Amino acid sequence: MPRVVDHEERRTLIARTFQRHVLVHGLAATTFARVAASAGISVGLIQHYFTNRDELLRFVYLDALRRRDDRIVAHIAEGEAAERPIRDMLAAAVRELLPLDGTRTAEFHITQNLLTQALHDPEIAEVAVRADRDLHLRASVAVRNGKKCGEVEPDVDADTAAARILATAHGLAIRLALTRPPTATASTGHVDAVLGPILAAVFTGRCHHHDRSRSNPDGSGES
Amino acid sequence: MPRVVDHEERRTLIARTFQRHVLVHGLAATTFARVAASAGISVGLIQHYFTNRDELLRFVYLDALRRRDDRIVAHIAEGEAAERPIRDMLAAAVRELLPLDGTRTAEFHITQNLLTQALHDPEIAEVAVRADRDLHLRASVAVRNGKKCGEVEPDVDADTAAARILATAHGLAIRLALTRPPTATASTGHVDAVLGPILAAVFTGRCHHHDRSRSNPDGSGES
Repeated sequence: MPRVVDHEERRTLIARTFQRHVLVHGLAATTFARVAASAGISVGLIQHYFTNRDELLRFVYLDALRRRDDRIVAHIAEGEAAERPIRDMLAAAVRELLPLDGTRTAEFHITQNLLTQALHDPEIAEVAVRADRDLHLRASVAVRNGKKCGEVEPDVDADTAAARILATAHGLAIRLALTRPPTATASTGHVDAVLGPILAAVFTGRCHHHDRSRSNPDGSGES
Repeated sequence: MPRVVDHEERRTLIARTFQRHVLVHGLAATTFARVAASAGISVGLIQHYFTNRDELLRFVYLDALRRRDDRIVAHIAEGEAAERPIRDMLAAAVRELLPLDGTRTAEFHITQNLLTQALHDPEIAEVAVRADRDLHLRASVAVRNGKKCGEVEPDVDADTAAARILATAHGLAIRLALTRPPTATASTGHVDAVLGPILAAVFTGRCHHHDRSRSNPDGSGES
């Protein structure tokens, strides 16, 4: 029996090759022909998996967003397990939007290119608006949870606080990608200096969520 | 004697036609042929003014940046004449980066498209980095002036404060362009809610620069 081709794997291989090409040459110069040549496959095979360029663009965009979101979810799970303050979890999540290493730089190029495409392309705009909404929801839930546990004052508007934190992160991402700080340490220092006070202005208190479980080591009093 | 053609006017006409095309169709779809058709001129005439597409791209980018900067300079001049707080002048200047009307939306599309192009194009990156540096310098001078006149505490780091304000503005611009708030009032309200606290955290004091001229109406005691 011949080996069954893993179609999802093939689609992903094509999408990742497309992404690498965009990183070096930009979106406009990234065609089926060039992706096929880079991946060592035929244009016909790409067309077998993606009817047209628009379908491939959506897949590449969603693939980049999904990988970023997976890392954000991992930060939250890890932070909750380690009983970290929400502010620290949000800071770690926000760093996933910034081009601070090869993976995030490649993803940033994809999201920046497709966000720009979204300005005149309603189908890509649909993906971009949904991604923006999801990210905004995650950040505003973090602020709302902060209110429940004591890290955030009750009168803080969670939606504008989330918008403020994410806007700063997006603007910071562009600047880092553009000016390419000489070292990873320089980038991290700049990110901390710019984002730190904005998070500190929202998360002014201390989380009391784990206080009971700490005084009650068996956790029986904890929901 | 035949009328002398105003070459700068022709270059600007071509650039503005290019800009309008980018707004509707995006940068990749904006070719010499399409700009020529829209402007009702020949491709040869465009080539007379711009050797190649790269030269036109740089001109269009610089044209958009210059118009934006002219408006920022006007806000500063007007604010100084009216003895407004630096915070208000900076708020007005920063609003020039946001797609809050037709002119600023068209400019935002150009700068967003060319910023994205800058990620893989060193010549466009040179323009983008210089524009970023100029804007950063303006904002950090505003914060430094704020320290001199009493609006900003002496221990505030002017560079990171400027980076924070501009990063937020850039991220806000993207979100406004993407989500297109239903009304101008909704946009303005959102902008104030997001940017206001960031400016307020830097500009915490009151400007004493005009105190002497006010108590001394002839201004003789004022430098």
